[in-house]
Amino acid sequence: MTELEALADRLRRFAQARDWEQFHTPKNLAMALAGEVGELLAELQWLTPEETANVMDDTAAAMRIRSELADVMIYLTRLADVLDVELIDAAHAKLDESDKRYTVETYRGSARKAPPLV
Amino acid sequence: MTELEALADRLRRFAQARDWEQFHTPKNLAMALAGEVGELLAELQWLTPEETANVMDDTAAAMRIRSELADVMIYLTRLADVLDVELIDAAHAKLDESDKRYTVETYRGSARKAPPLV
Amino acid sequence: MTELEALADRLRRFAQARDWEQFHTPKNLAMALAGEVGELLAELQWLTPEETANVMDDTAAAMRIRSELADVMIYLTRLADVLDVELIDAAHAKLDESDKRYTVETYRGSARKAPPLV
Amino acid sequence: MTELEALADRLRRFAQARDWEQFHTPKNLAMALAGEVGELLAELQWLTPEETANVMDDTAAAMRIRSELADVMIYLTRLADVLDVELIDAAHAKLDESDKRYTVETYRGSARKAPPLV
Repeated sequence: MTELEALADRLRRFAQARDWEQFHTPKNLAMALAGEVGELLAELQWLTPEETANVMDDTAAAMRIRSELADVMIYLTRLADVLDVELIDAAHAKLDESDKRYTVETYRGSARKAPPLV
Repeated sequence: MTELEALADRLRRFAQARDWEQFHTPKNLAMALAGEVGELLAELQWLTPEETANVMDDTAAAMRIRSELADVMIYLTRLADVLDVELIDAAHAKLDESDKRYTVETYRGSARKAPPLV
Repeated sequence: MTELEALADRLRRFAQARDWEQFHTPKNLAMALAGEVGELLAELQWLTPEETANVMDDTAAAMRIRSELADVMIYLTRLADVLDVELIDAAHAKLDESDKRYTVETYRGSARKAPPLV
Repeated sequence: MTELEALADRLRRFAQARDWEQFHTPKNLAMALAGEVGELLAELQWLTPEETANVMDDTAAAMRIRSELADVMIYLTRLADVLDVELIDAAHAKLDESDKRYTVETYRGSARKAPPLV
């Protein structure tokens, strides 16, 4: 079992033990995921991009941000499990496309304003 | 190297090869993460919770949702890497707290309206 | 002055009085807007759609939801003001398009799953 | 009728004419609102805060951003109408609290990193 499967398994058992699977529809979990991302944004919204690059030097901020990232990871993992999507495989499939679309030759050093990952 | 470390590594090399690390500040990546979650919500917003439970039976919808989940995973992994946060460990630390806070004895079968994971 | 202009004016003066205009870039305000929407989602995420239709009957929930809607309105108004966008005019322009795209003849009573406003 | 009431009225009639009120639960509309905010974030995510302050000088970007702001306004107005919340009144009530909490004397010129509106 990979570490991601183990996390999904723990979340599944957590929900089962409390009879909360009934609430864990994809719709509800997607909303919870968005809510947690909102809390993460709130940690970074008034900082400059440069300040956010060093935000983990502040111990209190670092603890809050680690906690928010964990919450996002938890709901994403649970949602993917409920939908039976394998996140790592799905991510690599998208990156295979990105490798072809955003070729190094064309995009390296580009001043384009929108440098995405996918 | 775990599968999550391998994904983070691929994303780091993708950015480096295109000289896009300058854009990958935590602030920017958090916004991109939120944008991708918004696209995921759009796939589920008009469906009932029950319909979303079976949404993967629709092949076209399943492909779109898998793709959106992948995008969310990609930006979350990249953001955590830039912030030097280990997502799996952070998630288990939060779940250790949830285990204590939401005890099975008290919460099982509860009709409470807000059954969270964290 | 319309009521929306008066609200935008109050927000502008609030920021000026505290010398906070420097923080109110479109990027920062858009993140704050998203953060507030996340808090609104958190109020509704575990309820069924039917339960959310009656959520204002619960006085405590109603107060929280009104407060979250207010926060969203405040950041949207401030963001539009900073960008010099007139929200009401912009909304009607989009609805003019929707009137043409989603004609009553074609869409009325449709079982289509995605009935948008825009 | 104020301009905001007129917009809410137009949206209500738009939905009624297509028999789409059944889809416009608070839960669904909140998700749609979040989805539109995600599209707005996508317009600003790779720009610096300074670049976003001048983003409306770019005609194409300005059109897209105006359009996204309109979409957010439309779903917020519709959601507030369905919940019977008066957005302007609710916003002023929150700002009355902010006036007291963030007094000019204490907060003016403050180097604090988190200067909110509410």
